[in-house]
Amino acid sequence: MMSKRLPNLQVALDHSDLQGAIKAAVSVGHEVDVIEAGTVCLLQVGSELVEVLRSLFPDKIIVADTKCADAGGTVAKNNAVRGADWMTCICCATIPTMKAALKAIKEERSDRGEIQVELYGDWTFEQAQQWLDAGISQAIYHQSRDALLAGETWGEKDLNKVKKLIEMGFRVSVTGGLNVDTLKLFEGVDVFTFIAGRGITEAENPAAAARAFKDEIKRIWG
Amino acid sequence: MMSKRLPNLQVALDHSDLQGAIKAAVSVGHEVDVIEAGTVCLLQVGSELVEVLRSLFPDKIIVADTKCADAGGTVAKNNAVRGADWMTCICCATIPTMKAALKAIKEERSDRGEIQVELYGDWTFEQAQQWLDAGISQAIYHQSRDALLAGETWGEKDLNKVKKLIEMGFRVSVTGGLNVDTLKLFEGVDVFTFIAGRGITEAENPAAAARAFKDEIKRIWG
Repeated sequence: MMSKRLPNLQVALDHSDLQGAIKAAVSVGHEVDVIEAGTVCLLQVGSELVEVLRSLFPDKIIVADTKCADAGGTVAKNNAVRGADWMTCICCATIPTMKAALKAIKEERSDRGEIQVELYGDWTFEQAQQWLDAGISQAIYHQSRDALLAGETWGEKDLNKVKKLIEMGFRVSVTGGLNVDTLKLFEGVDVFTFIAGRGITEAENPAAAARAFKDEIKRIWG
Repeated sequence: MMSKRLPNLQVALDHSDLQGAIKAAVSVGHEVDVIEAGTVCLLQVGSELVEVLRSLFPDKIIVADTKCADAGGTVAKNNAVRGADWMTCICCATIPTMKAALKAIKEERSDRGEIQVELYGDWTFEQAQQWLDAGISQAIYHQSRDALLAGETWGEKDLNKVKKLIEMGFRVSVTGGLNVDTLKLFEGVDVFTFIAGRGITEAENPAAAARAFKDEIKRIWG
């Protein structure tokens, strides 16, 4: 089975300082499809990070990974006016929060504006259908960093959930402990975007690391 | 039934700019027990807000309302070093995230350091028991701002959940659309902290509004 569309590559900037995030962005931004202002960094330096990324990369998709749980309209507007195209909401946010976020980001960014639901903990497919019904088009399937540190890894159970979300109509990003060697676990799955953080930004040569991801994506999905 | 301990009053600074948050903090900080660096503001200006609040109010409890969903250790450390005593985790964060956050905040703030679980969406009492088992002592029962805007309000169902959490051993804060008139809904419930935002900060006289909350708390629970 051939797929014409290649999965995107997204780099997550999860630094605790603006300088580190920007240095990493400059080193790999042109190699990737999507640049993410990570939650850790947003909570440290605020949405100025989004503004800097937008100015450095006017043509890339910029994601504000706010993991927004409430006040969706305000948070989405605050990030969209600084240049975020996409913004994340946490899966346990209420539907009104997600709808308010979607409305606000579309008002600022037009059709380019999208909300992504970040999947953590015990969400259900019934909830996922509610997100779709609310107009949310993207979901992010996550292995949490702390769960990975506690020994969890990608398994059949995860892949089946990703596939089911895709069948439901979501474009699904996957993230958490990904590297070039683990991409092949997803062979045959129509992943929308692979998100990598330190696997790229902490590499000796971040741009080369990003290209290695892209090459492996091309090899498997091309 | 008399309770010796009065519920605390916490003011939430949910401004989108540092200046607005600090102005509000200065106007009411000395009248309240707990000062919250709100999520919206943290995402806009970063943890500098926590540092400013700590310097202005060295003896008050400062909460960083990060609604942390991942990388608990990093986020907790980042906020604790700037002076946060308490930090919030979202209820759909994994247990390893909560444990990492708790460890990090206690390392920086000693016994004063605590993690609060913010309750959004479909959490269960089984999960709540896991939080207790992980050493989490506080929960925040929330009416989301967007749900309130969509017409939800405090009801018997909410009060019963709050009571059950208290019986389980949590100190429970309540928040969402609270004003002086709605405090009496909680009469007979051993609420740990009432959290108010705009109900105080947007009042014509914020300090007087905070005192009115405190007076009503004293009238009901004193």
